[in-house]
Amino acid sequence: MEIKVLRDVLSANDGIASRNQSRLDKHGILTINVMSSPGSGKTSLILQTVGKLKGEVRIAVIEGDIASSIDADKVSQQGATAIQINTAGGCHLDANMTENALNNLPLDDIDLLFIENVGNLICPAGFALGEHKRVILLSLPEGDDKPYKYPTMFTEANVVLINKIDLLPYLDFDIASFTKTVSGLNPKVKIFQVSCKTGQGLEGWFSWLEEQIKEIKSRRGS
Amino acid sequence: MEIKVLRDVLSANDGIASRNQSRLDKHGILTINVMSSPGSGKTSLILQTVGKLKGEVRIAVIEGDIASSIDADKVSQQGATAIQINTAGGCHLDANMTENALNNLPLDDIDLLFIENVGNLICPAGFALGEHKRVILLSLPEGDDKPYKYPTMFTEANVVLINKIDLLPYLDFDIASFTKTVSGLNPKVKIFQVSCKTGQGLEGWFSWLEEQIKEIKSRRGS
Repeated sequence: MEIKVLRDVLSANDGIASRNQSRLDKHGILTINVMSSPGSGKTSLILQTVGKLKGEVRIAVIEGDIASSIDADKVSQQGATAIQINTAGGCHLDANMTENALNNLPLDDIDLLFIENVGNLICPAGFALGEHKRVILLSLPEGDDKPYKYPTMFTEANVVLINKIDLLPYLDFDIASFTKTVSGLNPKVKIFQVSCKTGQGLEGWFSWLEEQIKEIKSRRGS
Repeated sequence: MEIKVLRDVLSANDGIASRNQSRLDKHGILTINVMSSPGSGKTSLILQTVGKLKGEVRIAVIEGDIASSIDADKVSQQGATAIQINTAGGCHLDANMTENALNNLPLDDIDLLFIENVGNLICPAGFALGEHKRVILLSLPEGDDKPYKYPTMFTEANVVLINKIDLLPYLDFDIASFTKTVSGLNPKVKIFQVSCKTGQGLEGWFSWLEEQIKEIKSRRGS
């Protein structure tokens, strides 16, 4: 019975996610689901991206957290439209929460929407939100063995950002081995080495984003 | 209906957890549920503890992971009895998995049992396993704002270990502010600053463990 209920929940979620995606497509909004463990740098990545692109691209952010509005406050101060979802204990966002947030965003005035998921390397992978792309951050201090232990998240990512590359001299992290494992699980994934603190390596990420935004806009026009 | 099922699941879990704890009490085995995000240092803490105490204390470890047996292999090489539980996607251990592991451990020959939970700062907090104490690791690179965002885990901990203290010079982490927040949420919690890599600060943790082991043994004798 527990399994049947779970199946019903996931299937209802997929229906709403698909409705969200159609709505985002209609408005030409590239939507990125950003996922990682707590403290890997999701908010820092978004802050860097808003800082870099805000002149050319209209950015909004849905912030998912169990509690607090710390991240929405930061993102809003940086110049993006921000909405905070508090899951009140829930370990991931779902499509329904996302739909409620979309109802409160000015969809005609957004080109790029980040959905910052709850910090968790497991549960968010099971719940589509309506996003076009899934981006995972793995920061060096977490260790290079994580794809073996948390394979689903890595298998379903479009992009993996290896973050906190500025800490490499102080840690035992084998980038070649990590990259090989991730590419083995997911041959099409794009991998970038970055520091969201210093800005190192973010050019590739910005270019990738700009390409994706163009693609969404051209799809809308066609 | 979903909520009702969840309540049934949690209540069944509590029943099994309570049975596990009685069994562990009967054998005088101090049992510690070790929880944190992925890569905060749970396995390193256990390896350091086994290395230090294995001459005086008989240690066993239940390793919880979604996939792989990397951690059980490491712990076993260090000289502890180790059992790996693979949750096959599950985001936390539960009392039933723990009971199955206990059925496969030589309970008469163990003084200290670590249960290393799945790397997740959220879901494991909801599921008692039968442990006597809950220990949380938070490593410096995760950031000092985590207790605001993930309060439950910190509220229910007996011990919080601030790990990777050797990285302090390279990070912006306010230890005084973190400690104040955690103590505010949980006034009785013990906090240690440690490096499970260099061994720095672990003496306090070892002493705390030895006191707890004595207490369990004396309770059993009384």
